[in-house]
Amino acid sequence: MAVVEISVTPLGIGEAGVSRYVAGCVRVVEQSGLSFQLTPMGTIIEGELDAIFAVLRSMHEVPFSQGAVRVSTLIKIDDRRDRPGHSMTAKVASVRRHLEGNSP
Amino acid sequence: MAVVEISVTPLGIGEAGVSRYVAGCVRVVEQSGLSFQLTPMGTIIEGELDAIFAVLRSMHEVPFSQGAVRVSTLIKIDDRRDRPGHSMTAKVASVRRHLEGNSP
Amino acid sequence: MAVVEISVTPLGIGEAGVSRYVAGCVRVVEQSGLSFQLTPMGTIIEGELDAIFAVLRSMHEVPFSQGAVRVSTLIKIDDRRDRPGHSMTAKVASVRRHLEGNSP
Amino acid sequence: MAVVEISVTPLGIGEAGVSRYVAGCVRVVEQSGLSFQLTPMGTIIEGELDAIFAVLRSMHEVPFSQGAVRVSTLIKIDDRRDRPGHSMTAKVASVRRHLEGNSP
Repeated sequence: MAVVEISVTPLGIGEAGVSRYVAGCVRVVEQSGLSFQLTPMGTIIEGELDAIFAVLRSMHEVPFSQGAVRVSTLIKIDDRRDRPGHSMTAKVASVRRHLEGNSP
Repeated sequence: MAVVEISVTPLGIGEAGVSRYVAGCVRVVEQSGLSFQLTPMGTIIEGELDAIFAVLRSMHEVPFSQGAVRVSTLIKIDDRRDRPGHSMTAKVASVRRHLEGNSP
Repeated sequence: MAVVEISVTPLGIGEAGVSRYVAGCVRVVEQSGLSFQLTPMGTIIEGELDAIFAVLRSMHEVPFSQGAVRVSTLIKIDDRRDRPGHSMTAKVASVRRHLEGNSP
Repeated sequence: MAVVEISVTPLGIGEAGVSRYVAGCVRVVEQSGLSFQLTPMGTIIEGELDAIFAVLRSMHEVPFSQGAVRVSTLIKIDDRRDRPGHSMTAKVASVRRHLEGNSP
């Protein structure tokens, strides 16, 4: 299972706020059925990588459908295959265990 | 106020897990007194940009102090100055308002 | 036409150098027939976005096929549709014109 | 020596083209005296990391000084300390050696 962060930013829209466009992108993830988290800097999605790629491709189109003529999209993929259980929850939990001194 | 995401990754360490290094980075942010959120893909910090830059610089050193010889660090800055109140909480709230249809 | 930068990094491989893996990724782009540039920090590809997405997906698999168990991939898409001619060459040329004072 | 890529993007400026702002950023790097390369997707700088951090901080201010009210800046640091000679030129040369089959 892969964990992927994406942020989609419209350029040249004449307003500094972009939350209307981000909301459009979040709706696309919601409809995909994949697990996700909205953060202050992007949307984090987990699941099978081919399914995620299809969603990333759709999210990138959202600002164009809302009138933007240029879109900058940043995607970061963390794909770990040496053991099951690589997930958004497990990643944060592992760091917290180290912070609490309960991990070797 | 700026909102900044950072992820610090040691390379060439011979183990796929990196949470020990991430925890070291989080401790640096904790000691800075700046507001932050730990996410599955990085750490998001908010505050005055010069203060944040100093913390970013320190976080990047952490894996070296833990034995890594190569570190890859990704930083994304979102700095908005046309109005006060640009914060981690406000950014997510603004998207949620659009999702709930309560925003123009 | 979109311009896209990608860097693919294997984690947990026990060696700090990764050029063997980068070379494998570059071979995938070469075979795609798409125009690209190798830079010190990644590979920049230009072309039709669906074609690029297929190549990105293949490049991400390369380190796994070479033995890595975890891969971190960063992708940045710059997609401009208000006029033709958005290309790697045109982007750099436009900046240079401004630097030389020949642009408004 | 570190190799660092930066791209600085103004948001909410009402025009899709941003090369005027990128040129302003490049001038800041030129004045720093650090080695750099302009690519279609950003500016790559090499040198001592503290010197680079100061330049990154200055580059991020450029669009504000040109009238932007929101700036999105992406920074990727590749810092390798296990041997001398980590540079823009050496990184690309190493990949090319693998592509030409002259590297183990």
